[in-house]
This record gives sequence, structure tokens and C-alpha cells, in this order.
Amino acid sequence: MSRRHEILRRATEVFEKKGVAQTSIGDIAEAVGIKREAIYYYFSNRREILLEIILPLSRELARNMDNILESSQSAREKLQAAIECHLHRYDPGYLEMTVALREDHFFKKDKRLDELRMVWRSYTDGWENLIRQGQENGEFAPDVAPKVVAYGILGMCNWLARWFDPGGEVSIDEIIRTYSLVATVGLVRPECTLKAELSQPGQAMANG
Amino acid sequence: MSRRHEILRRATEVFEKKGVAQTSIGDIAEAVGIKREAIYYYFSNRREILLEIILPLSRELARNMDNILESSQSAREKLQAAIECHLHRYDPGYLEMTVALREDHFFKKDKRLDELRMVWRSYTDGWENLIRQGQENGEFAPDVAPKVVAYGILGMCNWLARWFDPGGEVSIDEIIRTYSLVATVGLVRPECTLKAELSQPGQAMANG
Repeated sequence: MSRRHEILRRATEVFEKKGVAQTSIGDIAEAVGIKREAIYYYFSNRREILLEIILPLSRELARNMDNILESSQSAREKLQAAIECHLHRYDPGYLEMTVALREDHFFKKDKRLDELRMVWRSYTDGWENLIRQGQENGEFAPDVAPKVVAYGILGMCNWLARWFDPGGEVSIDEIIRTYSLVATVGLVRPECTLKAELSQPGQAMANG
Repeated sequence: MSRRHEILRRATEVFEKKGVAQTSIGDIAEAVGIKREAIYYYFSNRREILLEIILPLSRELARNMDNILESSQSAREKLQAAIECHLHRYDPGYLEMTVALREDHFFKKDKRLDELRMVWRSYTDGWENLIRQGQENGEFAPDVAPKVVAYGILGMCNWLARWFDPGGEVSIDEIIRTYSLVATVGLVRPECTLKAELSQPGQAMANG
């Protein structure tokens, strides 16, 4: 591992543990086991280190979303692919993803963070477009706002930053399978959905 | 508004804006427009203020969940009620809820925060039990881990802390309706679900 690489790795760990705002260049230097000055040889400040950690993965998420949107799959397959791409970033890459999702950098008024915000804006817009495509071709429920749905599914996936344990008993593949199921056909078994509709004759008639 | 109440209100605003760790008693005093010493007349420290803001709403969420679990509704109705209860906390109460969901207090090793963690533990366990009840009575998909589903739906609802605007164009009622739909029957319209199953003969036979 190069020195530059090692600094990024240790910085990610400290950012994740202490929060970006509470981390100093001194903390990062201590974690690497070098002097503060040695960090400045590679990076001019903390924000530069942060951006080098989270910009690449953010760009990759946005690029993957563009590819998914342009593919010829059904909307349901696109949705499953988007969930899979997003969740796969946690393993490996849990620490980087967790740091990327911290709110500090999204709300701070800082010109240099504009690029990061633009990438995430484009990625979130991609999710909205995916939902809209599915509504337009008749695959997805039409009477919900794409934005609200997009933020809901992203929230479901982003919440992993708060509970997922990369070495734990729940695998990313199991989470992908579960959240794809919830987002596409929901928790309620099909038989029960039909029963519920039959027991609401007014609504059943409105649908039929 | 009593002085005590005013301190809590302003502290909530500052906590939400700056983060709990970066907020000093002096910041809160400044927001209220009184001296630091005047704050200490009501509260011994920052953590005490924080707990008085977020413990009541956390307890209320856990209590509501207990009531929902003990009710005689179907699992689907319970799930909808739980989503409704959780999301209703954002309006009014967006700032309090956002502060409550900040991660600082959940990871910090601090004895006084144990009560808060216990309340949230009980609340999260309630979500898991709700999913398990639905699986046991045959309403919910059986082959997913209740914990993963519970964290997913909670994540969907908790993510509002990052995007919801209480004065904006999307109402809490619309979000409740949307997330209830996603969690129960998913995004894909029933006709398309049937079609997808028919096009996978192996799976259709396994189900029949």
C-alpha cells in the first residue's frame, strides 16, 4: 500500500469513527503513525482527503445508474439492478460508503463540495427517472410521486450505514434479495392482496 | 412559552443545524438570548437538554408500537399503522425527530444515554415482531429475515430526516400513503407481477 493510499485508508476509518467535522489532520497523522507535516505533502487539507475518498464511489454510483437507465431491461429489472448496485458498494467499501452518506458534506456551504453534491443530485435524479419510466410503461403503480418513492428506496438502502456489519451474519446478497422483494412486490403475499381487495367491494369495483 | 421550554426549542434548532457534538451551552444561550449561567439554572449539561428533547418522542414511538402489536388488526393493517405513527412524528416535530435520529447518541459510550438506547432497542424489536407476526399468520412473505425488513422500512421512514421539508410541497399524508403502498404491495402493478411469474415457468411450478 502506497503512503498516499494508507493515508486515505486511515482517514476513512477516523472519519467514520469520529465524524468528519471532529477529525483533524493531526488525528489522521496519528492513525497513520506519521507527522502532521507528512500529510500536507500529499493533501492540502481535510476536505481534499474526504473528496478523494468519496468522489470516486459517488461517481461510480451515478455512472452505473446512467447505464441501467439506458439498458433495455424492464423497469422492474432496472429497479432490482439499481438496488443491487447501490448495496454492493457496502461490501467491500462499507466505511467509504458510510462516510459518503454522512450529512455534513451535503449541507455545508462550501464551493469545493459542489461537485460532490452535483454527482449525488444526478444519481438521485436517476432514481426518480427510473421510477417514472416504470410508471410510463405501465409497470409501476401510477399514483405515487417518483421523488417520494426514490427517496424511500434510497433511504432503505442508505440506512445500512447505521446497522450493517460487514463481518456479521447478514450478507449483502440477502439484503439485496430482501429489498428487491419489498420494493417490487412488497411484503404482503399475493393471495392476501387479492383477499384484501375482495373485502373492500367499493375499491374492487372502482378497479374493475 | 416558559423559559425552560424556550431553551429546549432553541437547543433543538441549534442541535439540528450544527450537530449535537459541535453545539456548546454557550451556543444555546446565545440562541435564546440569555447568559450561559441562566441555562445551568435549568439543565446541568448539554446531554440533559438533548435527552429532554428526544426521550419523550422516543418513548411515545415505542409505546405506540406496543399498542399496535397488541391490537387485533391484520398484520398488514399493523404495518400501515406503524408507518403512519412513525411518519406522523415528523409533522409537527421534524426538528426533534431529526435530532433524535442523529447517530452520535447511539454510538457514544455514555451511561446516561443507555435509557435512550433501550427505548430505541424496544421500538426496533417491535418492528421485527410485527414482521414476524405477519409471517407466522401467513400474510407476509416467509423467506425474508424480519430484522432486515424492519431496518429497511425504518430506513425508508428515517431518511425523511435528510430530505423532508415541513413547509414544502410533499405532505406527510402523501408520504404515509406512498410508503405503506411500497412496503405492503410494492411498486410493481399486480398484472405485471403475474406476467413476470408466467414468464418464469420454473418458479411458477415451484410455487404451485
